Amino acid sequence: MAGPARALLAALLAPVLVALLVAPAWGRGGKGHGDWDTGALLPPLPPREDAARVARFVTHVCDWGALATISTQEAVLGQPFADVLSLSDGPPGAGSGVPYFYLSPLQQSVGNLQANPGATLTMSLAQTDFCRKHGFDPQSPLCAHIILAGTVTKVNETEGDFAKQSLFTRHPEMKTWPSSHNWFVAKLNITNIWLLDYFGGPKIVTPEEYYNVTFQ
Amino acid sequence: MAGPARALLAALLAPVLVALLVAPAWGRGGKGHGDWDTGALLPPLPPREDAARVARFVTHVCDWGALATISTQEAVLGQPFADVLSLSDGPPGAGSGVPYFYLSPLQQSVGNLQANPGATLTMSLAQTDFCRKHGFDPQSPLCAHIILAGTVTKVNETEGDFAKQSLFTRHPEMKTWPSSHNWFVAKLNITNIWLLDYFGGPKIVTPEEYYNVTFQ
Repeated sequence: MAGPARALLAALLAPVLVALLVAPAWGRGGKGHGDWDTGALLPPLPPREDAARVARFVTHVCDWGALATISTQEAVLGQPFADVLSLSDGPPGAGSGVPYFYLSPLQQSVGNLQANPGATLTMSLAQTDFCRKHGFDPQSPLCAHIILAGTVTKVNETEGDFAKQSLFTRHPEMKTWPSSHNWFVAKLNITNIWLLDYFGGPKIVTPEEYYNVTFQ
Repeated sequence: MAGPARALLAALLAPVLVALLVAPAWGRGGKGHGDWDTGALLPPLPPREDAARVARFVTHVCDWGALATISTQEAVLGQPFADVLSLSDGPPGAGSGVPYFYLSPLQQSVGNLQANPGATLTMSLAQTDFCRKHGFDPQSPLCAHIILAGTVTKVNETEGDFAKQSLFTRHPEMKTWPSSHNWFVAKLNITNIWLLDYFGGPKIVTPEEYYNVTFQ
């Protein structure tokens, strides 16, 4: 092929190639709510015997979780409470392991956290296509899920930029949420981790083991 | 068409019709883990202004949830705890509104419930294709989710058959779970319901309103 023809072909193909490269990121952050939209895009599960890696994997591929707090509402005062919250530990492929939240004082969970910051977050691969695809029941340990206990606190300014970028990349809708709700960035300071990813009971992972994972 | 020919045609068509009728139930309970496998099978969301119906809808289409309890484990004693549990409120299209669980004393949550049966269950349409399909972030109220507070207790024998059938239809794998785990059927006795399905804060639904829904 002559030089000019090759250049023309390259010029014609370039947008297609760019589109192909950009597509996975778009599929997650764009159309949907930042989830790994299709099974094809979900990275492979790390070896189940590497508990810390599996825990980090679950945190990273989940873009929401259920947070348990102690209720401060009169009707259920002192009782355990749970709500669904969006979260992100980093942009796709660059997870930090730290679950960041975008919270408002108007949320019931935030009222609870103001009185008692102790909380537990649970996330499951049942939130992705993984378990359905493999035929694992959500309660089966093969449908890997994690339990992260700790405290939820506001994120300081230094960490705030990364946290906000992590959240907004995977939850683009957040940028448009009404400012009257006084949204702020918070994180779970993890003290205890349980992983259920195989038979034989929950595996304990220390925060050190969890944060030392460098697979990303 | 002559009588015998019509009978022959009916005989030939019958298996096809049966297959068509059975297919949706199969798609849910068979291949996957009992979820409404594809967006095509998910029934339409009831009108959002009918809070009790929407709450019942979320309970029925979700086949798992996150249960908050108070921890009895030394490391996090008295702290809120959360885990993912499979559940069912009835066979597809015949939901009772009662979340039934299949529990084992080996589960952390069950140890907690033995000390304090108070619990809160949260379930979200983010668990289905609904929110992704419509582009609703999991934390947006448009991605409808519910919070059910109450107590978790063992189910008595009269109710046990329906509960077990409800669970096993949507979680066929449960039938093969190891008997050494001493599985038993339990339910959430709902005392308080919050629905987040639109802007303006959580809607309170009373258990009476919730159980009076007869859309199914």
